[in-house]
Amino acid sequence: MNNDDALGRVRVVLSRTSHPGNIGAAARAMKTMGLSQLVLVSPHAFPDPVATARAAGADDILAGARVVGSLAEALEGTVFAAALTARRRELAVPMKWAREAAGDLVGRAAFGDVALVFGNETVGLSNEDVALCHMPVKIPVSAVYSSLNLGAAVQVMSYELRMAALTPGEAPAVEFEPATHEQIEGFFEHLDRAITASGFFSPTNSKRLWPRLRRLFGRIRLEKDEINILRGMLSAFEKK
Amino acid sequence: MNNDDALGRVRVVLSRTSHPGNIGAAARAMKTMGLSQLVLVSPHAFPDPVATARAAGADDILAGARVVGSLAEALEGTVFAAALTARRRELAVPMKWAREAAGDLVGRAAFGDVALVFGNETVGLSNEDVALCHMPVKIPVSAVYSSLNLGAAVQVMSYELRMAALTPGEAPAVEFEPATHEQIEGFFEHLDRAITASGFFSPTNSKRLWPRLRRLFGRIRLEKDEINILRGMLSAFEKK
Repeated sequence: MNNDDALGRVRVVLSRTSHPGNIGAAARAMKTMGLSQLVLVSPHAFPDPVATARAAGADDILAGARVVGSLAEALEGTVFAAALTARRRELAVPMKWAREAAGDLVGRAAFGDVALVFGNETVGLSNEDVALCHMPVKIPVSAVYSSLNLGAAVQVMSYELRMAALTPGEAPAVEFEPATHEQIEGFFEHLDRAITASGFFSPTNSKRLWPRLRRLFGRIRLEKDEINILRGMLSAFEKK
Repeated sequence: MNNDDALGRVRVVLSRTSHPGNIGAAARAMKTMGLSQLVLVSPHAFPDPVATARAAGADDILAGARVVGSLAEALEGTVFAAALTARRRELAVPMKWAREAAGDLVGRAAFGDVALVFGNETVGLSNEDVALCHMPVKIPVSAVYSSLNLGAAVQVMSYELRMAALTPGEAPAVEFEPATHEQIEGFFEHLDRAITASGFFSPTNSKRLWPRLRRLFGRIRLEKDEINILRGMLSAFEKK
C-alpha cells in the first residue's frame, strides 16, 4: 500500500473537546503530517472562529470534519481503534507507547480505516470509551509534569504515524559532487608540501600530527569544489 | 550519563520569536518531555501574559529563560548546535531528519551543553544563523502543507530528544573532546586573518568562498586538539 493511502485511512477522533482552539491546532498538526480525516464527538464549540484561526491553512480539514454524537458512531466502519490515555488504568489490554502504536495503526490501515481517539482536555476518555478501542496508547511524558496540550498530543501522534508510514530513509542527498579518491589524495600531497615548506612539521612531531590531519580532513567527505578552494588557499600560503 | 542529565543539557533556543504564545507553548512542550533550558534571542515580546497563559504549569521554564541579543551569545559554552530548518538551502551542511538529529544531540550532551535553535515563525533562521550551527535539522512534513507551528515543532523535537535519551542507542563513538563554540569561532577568526594576509581572498570572491569554508570546517565537528593543530599550522603559514 502507498504511504499516502495509509495516512489517508487514519481517523483522528477528538472526543468532547472543550476548547475550539485545540480543534484548530489538531487540524493543522494533522495536515502537516499528511493526515486528513477528522471526526469530532460532541465538541463544545464547533465550527468556531478560534478553531479556524488556529488551523491556519488547514481549514479544509475543519471543513471536512465529521461531527457525531458518540464515540461508537465515530468508530463505525473502522477496522482498528487506539485510545490515547494519560493515566494508568486497570485495563485488560496492555498499553503501548506512541511509537509502537503508530506502527500498529499503519499496519492495520492495510485492511481499512483505523481510528486514533483523543479525550477531553481535562477529564480525558471515560473507561467506557477506552473499552470501545482495541489499544490504549501513551505518549512518554515527564513524571513530574505530564500536562501535554491536546494539540501537541495530536502533533506527536501524527508525526509518529507519518514516520511509521514512510521511512524517510537517508537524509536528503548531498547536492554537491563529492571529491574522488584521487582528488582527496592530491589535496593531502599539497597539504604536506605546504606544511613542510612552512616549517610547521618538525621531524619529531610529524608522526603524531600528520595522521591527525589526515583523520580530520578524511572524515569531512570533501566535495570537488572544496578541494579547489582548499588548494587555492594552500597555494596562496605557499606564494606568500 | 543519566537520562535526565542529557535532557538537562539541551538548550532550546528560540530566535526572534514574534508571538509570545509560541514561547509559552514551547515552554510547556519542553517541560512535558523533561527539558528545562530555554534561551530567547531578541524575542518580540517577553515576558508577556500570553506566554504565561500558554505555558500552563510550565511557568518555571519561562521564569528561568535567558534573554540574549544574538545567537552567538545564546550558543556560548555549548559543544554542539543544531538548527531547525524548513527550507532546502544552497550552502547547507547535509541535513538530518529529526529522529537521527535527536540521537546526535543526546550523544553530544555527554560532553556539555548542546543547543537546538528555532527561527522566527515567518522567516525562519538567516543563513548566517544556520552557519553558526553544526547541523541543519528537518522535521519530515507533508510536501503539500509544511506549515508546522513553532510550538508544535518544539514539541516534536522535545519528544524525539526524550525518546533518544530514554532509549540510548550506541554509545557515542567520539573518542576525543569536542571543541567548544568559542574555540571553533576562534579558529575561524584565525583562518580569516591568515587567509586575508595571504591575499587568497579578493573582495569579489570572499562572499562566495568564506561561507563555503565555514560550511566545510563547520560540518567537521572539530575536536579540541584539532583546533590546536590547525591554528599551529596557520601560525606557521603566517610566519613564513
